[in-house]
Amino acid sequence: MLEKRDPIPVQEAVHHVMKYAARGEIEYISIDQCDQRYLGDDIIASHDVPPFDRSPYDGFAIRAEDSFHASQSNPVEFEVIEEIGAGQVAVKEVKPFQAVRIMTGAQMPKGANAVVMLELTKEIEKDGKRFMVIKRPFKIGDNVSYQGTETKKGTVLVEEGRRINPGIKAVLATFGYAQVPVVKKPIIGLYATGTELLDVDEELTPGKIRNSNAYMITSQIYRTGAEAKYFGKLEDDLETCFQAIKNALSEVDFLITTGGVSVGDYDYLPEIYKKLGASVLFNKIAMRPGSVTTVAEYNGKLLFGLSGNPSACFVGFELFARPIIRYWFHSKRPHLQKVKATLHADFPKANPFTRFVRSKLIFEEGKLLVEPSGLDKSNVVTSLIDCDSLMILPGGTRGFSVGDEVEVLLLENEKGSEWPWN
Amino acid sequence: MLEKRDPIPVQEAVHHVMKYAARGEIEYISIDQCDQRYLGDDIIASHDVPPFDRSPYDGFAIRAEDSFHASQSNPVEFEVIEEIGAGQVAVKEVKPFQAVRIMTGAQMPKGANAVVMLELTKEIEKDGKRFMVIKRPFKIGDNVSYQGTETKKGTVLVEEGRRINPGIKAVLATFGYAQVPVVKKPIIGLYATGTELLDVDEELTPGKIRNSNAYMITSQIYRTGAEAKYFGKLEDDLETCFQAIKNALSEVDFLITTGGVSVGDYDYLPEIYKKLGASVLFNKIAMRPGSVTTVAEYNGKLLFGLSGNPSACFVGFELFARPIIRYWFHSKRPHLQKVKATLHADFPKANPFTRFVRSKLIFEEGKLLVEPSGLDKSNVVTSLIDCDSLMILPGGTRGFSVGDEVEVLLLENEKGSEWPWN
Repeated sequence: MLEKRDPIPVQEAVHHVMKYAARGEIEYISIDQCDQRYLGDDIIASHDVPPFDRSPYDGFAIRAEDSFHASQSNPVEFEVIEEIGAGQVAVKEVKPFQAVRIMTGAQMPKGANAVVMLELTKEIEKDGKRFMVIKRPFKIGDNVSYQGTETKKGTVLVEEGRRINPGIKAVLATFGYAQVPVVKKPIIGLYATGTELLDVDEELTPGKIRNSNAYMITSQIYRTGAEAKYFGKLEDDLETCFQAIKNALSEVDFLITTGGVSVGDYDYLPEIYKKLGASVLFNKIAMRPGSVTTVAEYNGKLLFGLSGNPSACFVGFELFARPIIRYWFHSKRPHLQKVKATLHADFPKANPFTRFVRSKLIFEEGKLLVEPSGLDKSNVVTSLIDCDSLMILPGGTRGFSVGDEVEVLLLENEKGSEWPWN
Repeated sequence: MLEKRDPIPVQEAVHHVMKYAARGEIEYISIDQCDQRYLGDDIIASHDVPPFDRSPYDGFAIRAEDSFHASQSNPVEFEVIEEIGAGQVAVKEVKPFQAVRIMTGAQMPKGANAVVMLELTKEIEKDGKRFMVIKRPFKIGDNVSYQGTETKKGTVLVEEGRRINPGIKAVLATFGYAQVPVVKKPIIGLYATGTELLDVDEELTPGKIRNSNAYMITSQIYRTGAEAKYFGKLEDDLETCFQAIKNALSEVDFLITTGGVSVGDYDYLPEIYKKLGASVLFNKIAMRPGSVTTVAEYNGKLLFGLSGNPSACFVGFELFARPIIRYWFHSKRPHLQKVKATLHADFPKANPFTRFVRSKLIFEEGKLLVEPSGLDKSNVVTSLIDCDSLMILPGGTRGFSVGDEVEVLLLENEKGSEWPWN
């Protein structure tokens, strides 16, 4: 009566999922719309930076050689022959003992090879002409930002798969990417199962609880950058469920269900996979929570059967759905980044399987600490409020104590990891 | 000719800005739209969790006392009188040596006080009746999740000012927040100045560069959760600028300008503040980059005059604009979180003033390391690509070396700090 399932290690399960990883298509969108999207292509410097020799300061452009003998006792005068602002180009060439008044960012005038900062000069007028006086020497190249010293034309500046942040957007603007190549968002369908589930606007009735998983998962989907399409609750009838899932699959790139994957009498998903002819990649993982997390494949599309327990559902999404979505977004580091941290609270409960504990990070005196973000029971929702990481506690016969070194997966960091989990 | 400005310490500048901090108004939006918005009110548990005594497992609900003598050699039989799924409520009361088949999450039947997991039972049929057999004793309360043990009704679960993440959304759903109280987004206006600036879709011409600050700042504005309203480039004419800024102020909650705050001949902003009758809070800060960052107040609204240099502009926004925006969003920790880290690269350049270096964090063996995210020159845009933090290097006569302990402000973390910067 009870189906026998063989648990596989977590990493093996991730490998099975990633066999179906595919890169999403590119679309071009306005730079004004590109925030938080993923680059579909490398961003390349379309010109040198600076694009011309320029002054990093307000001041005077001179020939350094004219200043070599300047000192406190021997001030040297330069005739100011022109004044140029940023964006302007000098018309005249700087000849011996001449200077051009130049603004921050302006192009160096012909003949000049150094800039004297405004603060180091004094201006005087003589015979109706304007002069500038300095009392110290300057070297050739002083205060000149030379063309290409920051970035050479053709350099790959940002790799595809990176999420666009303020700095990347600044780079896109600098190099004229008015249209930005980004990855089209995959559509992640979502069905909830569970006769005990009420909608968020329904009053509680005996035996029922409100559906929180669907809202949590859509939020997790948005966090990855993908689109979520919530289809509602699956009916109790197998044939109806089967049709609903089959139809949904044609509208989405991935389909997530919550609940119904356990071995209880009301868990319909295994039967639906069978009726669909989907191949089940795994239906039991050697981990807590989420051991019944099931992934199946149908016509090249993946069905993620996440547990109905909030924590198991949450963890199952981050471990198995997130990386393939990030891969879709061309990420070269689609998996969660794993780091080491010091346990900041006792965790006395031993577990035969690897446990992923909803946790929060603490920075203290240059060290990374981690502690559970709340009660570690699989149906507890409040532990997710402050959850920014998952502590990995290996299976064994003992619990863990303050000061133990543990490994942690970071949930809110864009860096990621190439493979689970380096 | 050169205006004399007295630099004030960074923290003092932040204090001046925060004197004008105000909380934004609350609006109610659908839970489906609430991702990444800020809570305008505390979220309170509207019922106990669990809302009733329930079973955390699939199994059988029994009276524990009937099992006290069960053992391998003394199996005890229970008559299965009813079967309930999650969301259903048992009709019958459990009497001595009776059991109710119960699913995960279902409410405990009357009379029962323990749950036996399915795996520990055997089912048999006798005289057309259904029985369940166990071979070990259970204690009262075994495998029962009692009402209110996770959360008591009335508990404050999430404080106002928190940004809604998947966990908080799950909590909102659990407690029936179909409409969520969030803070209305402030509108941050933006004007760029600089005759050297080309639009992103214009070809480079001699002496000109493309405007990257406007794009970077809108992205930084979005990162705080606020709305950005870009008005374009300010004209070179003082009267036109003055009118433009005056008009813009009536449409926004804060106004940011980039460039034009230095002491160069083309820096109009100081004159505009004067003509406007705005009171300048400060126009010189003892820091690099961004020493000319200016903040002025006009009719209770703040004008942030950020430097035209990309790094100075970037840093100025994060240090001075971000906290007052976060305060608007009811945050109790509106400032950047400051942590300690170990320097992972030499930084030989000494500086008389506190320096905020665009940096990236590295996690290594449980320690937090930090290094510059690129060339530390104020006009360098590419250093912003990987910038997730700002290293604070105090002013002094020496540079810094690998292994030095430094302080770092975190840019991509939601935790924040109550005051700059604890």
